[in-house]
Amino acid sequence: MTQETPQIAARESAAPVQIDDGAPVDAVADIVVVGGGGGGLPAALFSRWLGDEVILLEKAPELGGTARKAAFWYWVPNNAAMRAAGVEDREEDFLRYVARLSRPHQYDPASPTLGLSEWEYTMCKAVYESASPATELLREQDALVYRHCEGVPDYWAELPEDKAPTGRVLVPSDARETMSDGGQVGIRTMSAAARRDGIDIRTSHRVQRLVTDDDAVVGVEASTPDGMSHRVLARKAIIFATGGFTHDKELRQNFLNMPVFGGCAALTNEGDFIRIGSSAGAQLRNLNYAWMCPIPLESAVAGRADMSGMFSVAGDSMIFVNKHGKRVVNEKLQYNELAQAFFTWDPQTGEYPNLVLIQIWDQASQANSASDEYGRLIVPPGADDDHVITGATLEELAAGIADRLAKYAGVTGGLKLSDDFVDTLRATIERFNGFAARGVDDDFHRGERAVQLLFNGVVRDEPERGNPTMWPISDSGPYYAALVTGGTLDTKGGPKTSPDGQVLDDMDRPIPGLYGVGNCVASASAQAYWAGGATLGPIIGFAYRAANAAHAEPARQTAASAGT
Amino acid sequence: MTQETPQIAARESAAPVQIDDGAPVDAVADIVVVGGGGGGLPAALFSRWLGDEVILLEKAPELGGTARKAAFWYWVPNNAAMRAAGVEDREEDFLRYVARLSRPHQYDPASPTLGLSEWEYTMCKAVYESASPATELLREQDALVYRHCEGVPDYWAELPEDKAPTGRVLVPSDARETMSDGGQVGIRTMSAAARRDGIDIRTSHRVQRLVTDDDAVVGVEASTPDGMSHRVLARKAIIFATGGFTHDKELRQNFLNMPVFGGCAALTNEGDFIRIGSSAGAQLRNLNYAWMCPIPLESAVAGRADMSGMFSVAGDSMIFVNKHGKRVVNEKLQYNELAQAFFTWDPQTGEYPNLVLIQIWDQASQANSASDEYGRLIVPPGADDDHVITGATLEELAAGIADRLAKYAGVTGGLKLSDDFVDTLRATIERFNGFAARGVDDDFHRGERAVQLLFNGVVRDEPERGNPTMWPISDSGPYYAALVTGGTLDTKGGPKTSPDGQVLDDMDRPIPGLYGVGNCVASASAQAYWAGGATLGPIIGFAYRAANAAHAEPARQTAASAGT
Repeated sequence: MTQETPQIAARESAAPVQIDDGAPVDAVADIVVVGGGGGGLPAALFSRWLGDEVILLEKAPELGGTARKAAFWYWVPNNAAMRAAGVEDREEDFLRYVARLSRPHQYDPASPTLGLSEWEYTMCKAVYESASPATELLREQDALVYRHCEGVPDYWAELPEDKAPTGRVLVPSDARETMSDGGQVGIRTMSAAARRDGIDIRTSHRVQRLVTDDDAVVGVEASTPDGMSHRVLARKAIIFATGGFTHDKELRQNFLNMPVFGGCAALTNEGDFIRIGSSAGAQLRNLNYAWMCPIPLESAVAGRADMSGMFSVAGDSMIFVNKHGKRVVNEKLQYNELAQAFFTWDPQTGEYPNLVLIQIWDQASQANSASDEYGRLIVPPGADDDHVITGATLEELAAGIADRLAKYAGVTGGLKLSDDFVDTLRATIERFNGFAARGVDDDFHRGERAVQLLFNGVVRDEPERGNPTMWPISDSGPYYAALVTGGTLDTKGGPKTSPDGQVLDDMDRPIPGLYGVGNCVASASAQAYWAGGATLGPIIGFAYRAANAAHAEPARQTAASAGT
Repeated sequence: MTQETPQIAARESAAPVQIDDGAPVDAVADIVVVGGGGGGLPAALFSRWLGDEVILLEKAPELGGTARKAAFWYWVPNNAAMRAAGVEDREEDFLRYVARLSRPHQYDPASPTLGLSEWEYTMCKAVYESASPATELLREQDALVYRHCEGVPDYWAELPEDKAPTGRVLVPSDARETMSDGGQVGIRTMSAAARRDGIDIRTSHRVQRLVTDDDAVVGVEASTPDGMSHRVLARKAIIFATGGFTHDKELRQNFLNMPVFGGCAALTNEGDFIRIGSSAGAQLRNLNYAWMCPIPLESAVAGRADMSGMFSVAGDSMIFVNKHGKRVVNEKLQYNELAQAFFTWDPQTGEYPNLVLIQIWDQASQANSASDEYGRLIVPPGADDDHVITGATLEELAAGIADRLAKYAGVTGGLKLSDDFVDTLRATIERFNGFAARGVDDDFHRGERAVQLLFNGVVRDEPERGNPTMWPISDSGPYYAALVTGGTLDTKGGPKTSPDGQVLDDMDRPIPGLYGVGNCVASASAQAYWAGGATLGPIIGFAYRAANAAHAEPARQTAASAGT
């Protein structure tokens, strides 16, 4: 990519333009879907299968968005496979589980909405009602065929509110055994179905703004890398599914509840619908929370498109320590929770002492747990290992860590190892080794939850041990280390929508013709990451509802006549 | 207040209306200021003194807003009193101090903007340049005469970046010795000046929306409690100074970085300019952070208009414990930092274990430290003490606390005392008493910073002791307790403005005719509470800049002719 031929057009003003301004119209369809990832492809497919003409505009040169990088688990309450297997998942139980986690501080089983706002409650009900029928339709149409991950637990499976702790997770059926390529499979099969069924797909089209007719949204203007502007009108509705704002630093810093360094969303997720939706008078909601995960510091700072979130921290003789050489977190926590650890604020010193944690492992974990899947940092020979720091002794390792941190002082507030790092690290290892020998982590309860075993990765075969997440760290080198911080899969705030995807204005009235689904709009999950696939399962359900609601809109003659 | 005669009109749609819609015009001025508190009164005064005709619209029945409830410290770098006293406060030092605290994780002394964004950096420079001249003009015009609090330290006075650790704080000169009525004094004198100098003040006018002429903002529509709508036009500009969104639960939950229970801002601070500014295409920034303080749980849940934030936690034989009976924080931290402690997330249990902390004190603190100022919970005889729980023994006290917590289970996620609360509390007291006897808090460093002594309140006279913030808690009753949580003075996010108060659209272009200052717009302080008065000092500076920029706008003939 050179300056002369950018792959993606630069951002322009999001201020809406009026339909009667005389600009030429390039194309018209019943439904225009913006974004061709895990929300946009299903929305386009559902619309097409209802009989609507569909144009899909994607900003990147290819389809897939963030979902293509994911394992593409999708969490579907009361799904057909559960029902077939006789696993009960009642709506009232589902709602209690999600309410308990989304607003834990106001969860109230006696409240009609369980302590959620009315909006959150109806959105959660919509997930229960529609994720499964949506999923089944995708399967029946051969667009997204799944296999049931009947043993995968929810991320809070042990809570008393979780009455269906396993069984809600599906994955594309052709994904490999470890499931890490699920996103490639799911995007491939949905894209093939979209082409097969006549969806007009236009990549490298960056939607810049809305076209309005008085208060109604009737189209969009997109620009292509050649600098051309394209006006595309919709007879019925525009459905945005353009992802969050992970890669817009200003929005991250001004909206998110933690100072994250970026994340593993597609690089095109720059908050476009925050700006475009705002310009149409949409309310913004849930801006403060994100789908979070640890990320390798160095890849995040470099803005690497191929960066994976650390969804599974492998290794048993492995710990995270902070700049003081202290463990501060259970390294095997589910990723969304693990990511919170980096942002502890020290009101005494005025700093984030855990902003960068250092993953440290020994030769045994290197030999037994290396993998290049799920963002693991213990990688096999031949894999990209620029992030790995090595040392024959702990002293050597610490010197290497200090050098590496110095490179990033400008973006970490000058974070460096404390003078007593090695001594404290030695004491930390000694304490951890005691826990590992007993199989019980007195400090952070490592390995005590089902989800922690799920994401433990491959470890050495030790048939007798009770806790496979821990093993004593060797008292001799070589040792290995890498820098870790907190980031986002993607954000989950944006314009507020009805349960049918209608974008709402400041009085909660739908903005005519404007819909949104996925990470570009406000999630009712608030702070929670309910389970693996709690992103894509609900999104597919909302895409189904939005497509149905948009289909029911009267076709506008103005839009049609203007363009044809 | 009854249903039939509300004091404040209900919120209506914020969608702008066009000037040419034929609606009658009620009034016209050069400048229309919206909000009559700590931002609006100075903005109106500065405008008037430039020769502009000014109408000031206030939502509440009286002027004052949040500032009237405050001590009205105002933090003014390099102020005239410092200069007169020979205290050096150079711009480059000031900028390092604020950058270090606002974005601590990216503070970089080698960066041209010190790690701040360009916008944040220029906003901070504007504070340094304008807060002092603005302050002096208010003084010269006899609108706000101050006395210099030359000994009051900044909240992070010990940081090496603070080269002027004392001297930046001013307070209205007629405030009492303890300064707690500074807000009443400041609002009274500024209001008197506004009336003296011919500002047209209209209270009980709730601004609902903007009036636009194409893309320019030329007026507002306000409604009064009688249900009437009033169109007020401005020849030059509208300046919003309407406060934050502390009292809009939906906005709090969807924007703030912590699940706060409300706060001590004026009850009229409901985020009006979030909605009105958004509807004009403004970008929103710094939505995630707030000016924070501990608040009494029960007053917050009741939504009491007279609630004060807990700016000074008095008492030496006094501790905060959580539901397990454990101390978790330095009780004497400056309020903004202390408030963070309530929102620690436990990823193991999925709860906020410190969401409600329990202040516990003995008879000695009751006798020596009672006060009804600054939101203190140890109140003197005769004061409102509904929040106080008493017990002759720790067991009796715990029973009272448990009963009280049960009343609030619906809004605290069912928070209750753990079974071993009393045993743990006893051990906690024993440990604290050891610290108190030695004068050193090994766990949380109570009393080690200047600001902690500043806010310690009155304690018994013990000439010999080194640390006046601690004293052993008696081993016999009576004991006292009260429930505390975290809240906001007010929020600090909203539309992004230029350093001259011009509200900016998504391409950082000023929206013609629209200005904003104060807590209704985005603060460049990000997460920081630099010092006491770091709210009002900069706000006065920005009001001065906005008034000057608005004065320089060409007077619109359309607006003038429409209204006269």
